[in-house]
Amino acid sequence: MATGPSSVSATASERVVISVDAMGGDRGPAAVVAGLVDSLAQHDRLDVILHGDEAALRPLLDRHPELAPRITLRHAERVVTMEDKPSQVMRHGQGTSMWSAIDSLREGEAAAAVSCGNTGALMAVSMLRLRKMPGLNRPAIASLFPTPKPGKMNVMLDMGADVKAEPGDLLQFAFMGASYARNGLGLSRPRVGLLNVGTEEHKGRAELQEAHALLGKRAGAGDFDYVGFVEGTDILSDRVDVIVTDGFTGNVALKAIEGTARLVSDLMRQTLTSTLMAKLGALMARGALGRLQRRIDPRRVNGGVFLGLNGTVIKSHGSADSTGIAAAIGLAYQLAQVRFLERLAARVASAEAAGQDGGRVGPANGTGSSPTE
Amino acid sequence: MATGPSSVSATASERVVISVDAMGGDRGPAAVVAGLVDSLAQHDRLDVILHGDEAALRPLLDRHPELAPRITLRHAERVVTMEDKPSQVMRHGQGTSMWSAIDSLREGEAAAAVSCGNTGALMAVSMLRLRKMPGLNRPAIASLFPTPKPGKMNVMLDMGADVKAEPGDLLQFAFMGASYARNGLGLSRPRVGLLNVGTEEHKGRAELQEAHALLGKRAGAGDFDYVGFVEGTDILSDRVDVIVTDGFTGNVALKAIEGTARLVSDLMRQTLTSTLMAKLGALMARGALGRLQRRIDPRRVNGGVFLGLNGTVIKSHGSADSTGIAAAIGLAYQLAQVRFLERLAARVASAEAAGQDGGRVGPANGTGSSPTE
Repeated sequence: MATGPSSVSATASERVVISVDAMGGDRGPAAVVAGLVDSLAQHDRLDVILHGDEAALRPLLDRHPELAPRITLRHAERVVTMEDKPSQVMRHGQGTSMWSAIDSLREGEAAAAVSCGNTGALMAVSMLRLRKMPGLNRPAIASLFPTPKPGKMNVMLDMGADVKAEPGDLLQFAFMGASYARNGLGLSRPRVGLLNVGTEEHKGRAELQEAHALLGKRAGAGDFDYVGFVEGTDILSDRVDVIVTDGFTGNVALKAIEGTARLVSDLMRQTLTSTLMAKLGALMARGALGRLQRRIDPRRVNGGVFLGLNGTVIKSHGSADSTGIAAAIGLAYQLAQVRFLERLAARVASAEAAGQDGGRVGPANGTGSSPTE
Repeated sequence: MATGPSSVSATASERVVISVDAMGGDRGPAAVVAGLVDSLAQHDRLDVILHGDEAALRPLLDRHPELAPRITLRHAERVVTMEDKPSQVMRHGQGTSMWSAIDSLREGEAAAAVSCGNTGALMAVSMLRLRKMPGLNRPAIASLFPTPKPGKMNVMLDMGADVKAEPGDLLQFAFMGASYARNGLGLSRPRVGLLNVGTEEHKGRAELQEAHALLGKRAGAGDFDYVGFVEGTDILSDRVDVIVTDGFTGNVALKAIEGTARLVSDLMRQTLTSTLMAKLGALMARGALGRLQRRIDPRRVNGGVFLGLNGTVIKSHGSADSTGIAAAIGLAYQLAQVRFLERLAARVASAEAAGQDGGRVGPANGTGSSPTE
């Protein structure tokens, strides 16, 4: 799978193969196939290896005979359910569509994998089969968030690959998040912030103070600007491009944001059907409201990316419909095309080099002292 | 200030005195006085002691001569600014309007205090002058959040009084939050949840596992139902009434929710002025949209309450305008009226009694084992 470090983007004629787990999502394989069909229509150079139950998938694929040359069906007996424990799936997951989808990366036959199955199991199988990148301590899940600027997205990580993170891990998250922002979002010099309860230097836990000092010292090596501490209000703002935090905090913030967006949308819908005048108004503003809906639609920013493994794995929402699946496959295609994995591995190596004199686990040695180099 | 434990609510003729810090908010004393005037109009039995710069306040008050008998002006030379460090204010804060407002509680001349100044300084001064309730380890800040049910609010704590919390602290937060939900929101048997990255029993950090076991065992003594782990999406839901978390996570979630509500509102405003049709539609739906706006308006759910001190202190948003200030004073009035402080102290004492056999700091002794009593 590896190519020389001098390779840049795929050439214009090259095929880009994405491995897709058809099973395990809340809406079943039909939604996955529908999303797949949309993606293939959008990207000429995209081919897909589809993993799952042949009996269920074959009839769905037969409706699109024109796509047959671009879809390879790989039968898998079993499915990982949302209830399965990651540890169980690690031990007994062989033969599932998820395992098979990850193994296509391992064998080098696909450049990225997409699944909307059980997140914990997907991370466990990915860790087991792909292994961590050399020099990396903790992999992370990165997600995208909308901002006030049209088309501009922010990256936050970790979203729950692991519930804790040491200062050295947060430094590696910053390097990986910046690389993802550069290659996935096209930001040449991302601004990176560390999530805290205030922007003042003295605020927050001791490990954040330590990570803050490390980031200030090392940002140059990662080709990003470190903007210091950011707050919860900054996640959806244009103050920053990459928000670094531990998996526990990131997961809570992600779900709080999703819950808020959902509540406001629901209330808006109720409001615009509450009176005849409101209904008429909504009808008139329909076009504009539809554009807004699409812009803040969580399905379109769907897709957490696993960073730090020897393979690009994209986790789509369990409840993703065809729009969500297509967005996740589109992201996989984009990352495969720019050879993100090689670029990321180079960044992790440079973070490792940069962090050698103190980036790793160890007692915090005071937060006010300035580094000696 | 203390009355017998048999006392219930204030009698119908009794005056309710609230101490208000007029200075230190982002919008200056004019916004505070405007909010005060609204509150006095709403609550017949409310009287106010107003702390701040007499030269600035006297002209503002002189515009409302009819309220003169109900407002006592207490001159304070100095002001705590948003930049002042809590530790500095603790040492040198005497003579500030904030200090003076808290001392009115200490002296027993007011039943609750409201300030829109520096949160850290307000907590520091409140801790110093009022002291923690007997048996309490960490005080907490509780805030209110909207839900899909009209008029129904959720309580989350801690919002940042302290950035960490031991399992025993989370248990005390649950008792205090439930008491606040009962007395401030009128929920007779609140449902309490513990914020985590998933609802499954095995998820999350070790201290959460330990707190989970404690809460399951002790909920009965606090007259609440423990619903187990909840996620970020539940904060604004009707699954739960009280969400318990540490101050770091609570602060990040609060600000993420505020940021999301703000982004969606801003985008909605842009959307509804983007085309002529949208403008006309918005005009027609104006009444309904206005009601929605009021419902999710953060100024109306304004007011973090400090729980666990020998006095009821309400922190209003620094940027609160007159609507926000009036909401905070209204909450102070409500809590003073039901003698919340005495009820809370009784609950803290019962949590302490309930927690005696293991509620406090100590090694987690496994999470799967069932309690022996």
